[in-house]
Amino acid sequence: MTARPANAHQARLLRLLRDNGPNSRAQLGDQVDLSRSKLAVEVERLLETGLVVADGLAASRGGRRSHNVRLAPGLRFLGVDIGATSVDVAVTNAELEVLGHLNQPMDVREGPGAVFEQVLTMAAKLKASGLAEHFDGAGIGVPGPVRFPEGVPVAPPIMPGWDGFPVREALSQELGCPVMVDNDVNLMALGEQHAGIARTVSDFLCVKIGTGIGCGIVVGGAVHRGTTGSAGDIGHIQAVPEGRPCACGNRGCLEAYFSGAALARDAQEAAQQGLSPELARRREANGTHGTLSAVDVAAAAAAGDTTSLALIREGGTRTGQVIAGLVSFFNPGLVVIGGGVTGLGHTLLAAIRTQVYRQSLPLATGNLPIVLGELGPAAGVIGAARLISDHLFSPA
Amino acid sequence: MTARPANAHQARLLRLLRDNGPNSRAQLGDQVDLSRSKLAVEVERLLETGLVVADGLAASRGGRRSHNVRLAPGLRFLGVDIGATSVDVAVTNAELEVLGHLNQPMDVREGPGAVFEQVLTMAAKLKASGLAEHFDGAGIGVPGPVRFPEGVPVAPPIMPGWDGFPVREALSQELGCPVMVDNDVNLMALGEQHAGIARTVSDFLCVKIGTGIGCGIVVGGAVHRGTTGSAGDIGHIQAVPEGRPCACGNRGCLEAYFSGAALARDAQEAAQQGLSPELARRREANGTHGTLSAVDVAAAAAAGDTTSLALIREGGTRTGQVIAGLVSFFNPGLVVIGGGVTGLGHTLLAAIRTQVYRQSLPLATGNLPIVLGELGPAAGVIGAARLISDHLFSPA
Repeated sequence: MTARPANAHQARLLRLLRDNGPNSRAQLGDQVDLSRSKLAVEVERLLETGLVVADGLAASRGGRRSHNVRLAPGLRFLGVDIGATSVDVAVTNAELEVLGHLNQPMDVREGPGAVFEQVLTMAAKLKASGLAEHFDGAGIGVPGPVRFPEGVPVAPPIMPGWDGFPVREALSQELGCPVMVDNDVNLMALGEQHAGIARTVSDFLCVKIGTGIGCGIVVGGAVHRGTTGSAGDIGHIQAVPEGRPCACGNRGCLEAYFSGAALARDAQEAAQQGLSPELARRREANGTHGTLSAVDVAAAAAAGDTTSLALIREGGTRTGQVIAGLVSFFNPGLVVIGGGVTGLGHTLLAAIRTQVYRQSLPLATGNLPIVLGELGPAAGVIGAARLISDHLFSPA
Repeated sequence: MTARPANAHQARLLRLLRDNGPNSRAQLGDQVDLSRSKLAVEVERLLETGLVVADGLAASRGGRRSHNVRLAPGLRFLGVDIGATSVDVAVTNAELEVLGHLNQPMDVREGPGAVFEQVLTMAAKLKASGLAEHFDGAGIGVPGPVRFPEGVPVAPPIMPGWDGFPVREALSQELGCPVMVDNDVNLMALGEQHAGIARTVSDFLCVKIGTGIGCGIVVGGAVHRGTTGSAGDIGHIQAVPEGRPCACGNRGCLEAYFSGAALARDAQEAAQQGLSPELARRREANGTHGTLSAVDVAAAAAAGDTTSLALIREGGTRTGQVIAGLVSFFNPGLVVIGGGVTGLGHTLLAAIRTQVYRQSLPLATGNLPIVLGELGPAAGVIGAARLISDHLFSPA
């Protein structure tokens, strides 16, 4: 088991080395505002734990040359992003650089047993390829609300078999390392904050449009999870009073109008009604089941299919209606749009932007970028590695 | 000018004495986790500044009796809450207890000159009554967004003459003490957090229904003001797609359906259309102008007028629709309803509750109290005093 920092200074030093890479003792001293002698003590203790290693001499700043230090090059984090229909598993070094990344289709409704077996197989494959000898910690994202302190999914609507399952404890035992669990949308926000488009922003929203729709909320640089871990669950915000019935039992929810699942359903209908030869052709090409997915709609739209473009635009407008309210309420510095459905790309983004800029208060949108995420499917696994490293790089 | 604490320990001690009252050195030491000798040094320095004074011997805990300390009894804060149609001014001691509180009707649209003259007159009156010899600091609330660092209202919709006016600088000069300025809704939240119903809650929403509707957002114990100071501006969240036109230029905003102003307008209409003899009677009693206010609707409802009750219920339902979305998004631990319109009381509250509990996710509402504020019009002025004391009780 990996050593932990003994105090806040050591934790701060570890995070600086994680986020900025190898550095000289002199420059680290400037950044943590510690005296030369106090810094020397803390660095010495970190060297003793093995978390930090010496890394040669730094470039001269005039006077005696300072020694470089860096995080141990053998540290390995496992990042796991369990989505509704697929699993991503990646291994990173201590600086959270992705060394290897695997993706596998998988239905989360198969339950924790089957999904964990898959995750462990993928982790073993990454080890076998020589990228890791062991894991110092693992972060796990699941597509539903999580009681964060315990790492337990709670009342997750699209993963019924997971309610109350001790994910953290079970995987910690299987993997033999510390584990932290969070909602997948929060991890996407953490990923884009660590290595993506939100690097310099401390208050932002990260809207993930996949099978469902969720929102990561970052306030003052930290993820806001809410009182029961369900913050950001925007898929069931009412978009239309007394509107379409939703799977949750209410009417007019955003997800009743738009999400990867809703888009696939609407495309299916359009194909059946003969509204789109392009979608009908793709449906047949998908074999005897004759189903369509959001990916098909994206491809049809890219091929110029007007029905598909209209469906995407309409979904973007509905999503924009809800985001507009959140922007007026929260006044973020950035809105990031990500998730599987970002294959729908700029058509979707344009519809969301139009609606938010039209409907939110000018003061809240005057200088508000609304952008696509930068990291794609890597956002979740990098966020997962970031989550566990934040935990391990905190005083024990 | 009042002295300021020299470091974070001293700031912490001042806030503890503010929030918990006089205390023994021994108990303070337990709370700030300082060694006996280090604590003695910091307390000694605070005694030298005059912010803290000795207050006799504490009760024995066995062994030598500890000395009590308290905040200087002569410290005085001025709390000012400028609403759309009235001004509240109060003086508090260092523990933020209200020693005197004045209220005066005043239209904020008369502009900063006239309003400040009124505020200064009221402050002078409080001084003349012997409650204060001077003010050590003042907090000011205004009914619109504020660029917080500078204390300047920015693009405030209902107070056009105030845009960019240097409220902090101007009042600081007039009052001869440090001044902090914030949105009135944020101050209401701070007040309910300090001395009201939100004392034990770190993540909550405080919805103020007055002439307009706004929301104070508290995250991790601190007010979230947003990137441009407009967070919580929920009056222009869309309640009905393509709904009624709103004064802001958009359609379907919450305030187009409900607020003190909208309620007065709807009551007026009902009276004119002969729908409510009770409202018609009150309208005539209001003299030749024949106007009605939200207060009239509250009184009519209390007298059993079904039209007034229906208007309040409908407004509560619309408000509840918007709050339901915010609850799903933010997952707060408490929702406080306050502001002038809380005269509408439990009819309004019941309608809001019904809608939120029906429409938000069960996980977010499972244990969510939705309650009326405890402090009434004192919330704003106590919040204002809290704001300036937080500033003064921070390291300079």
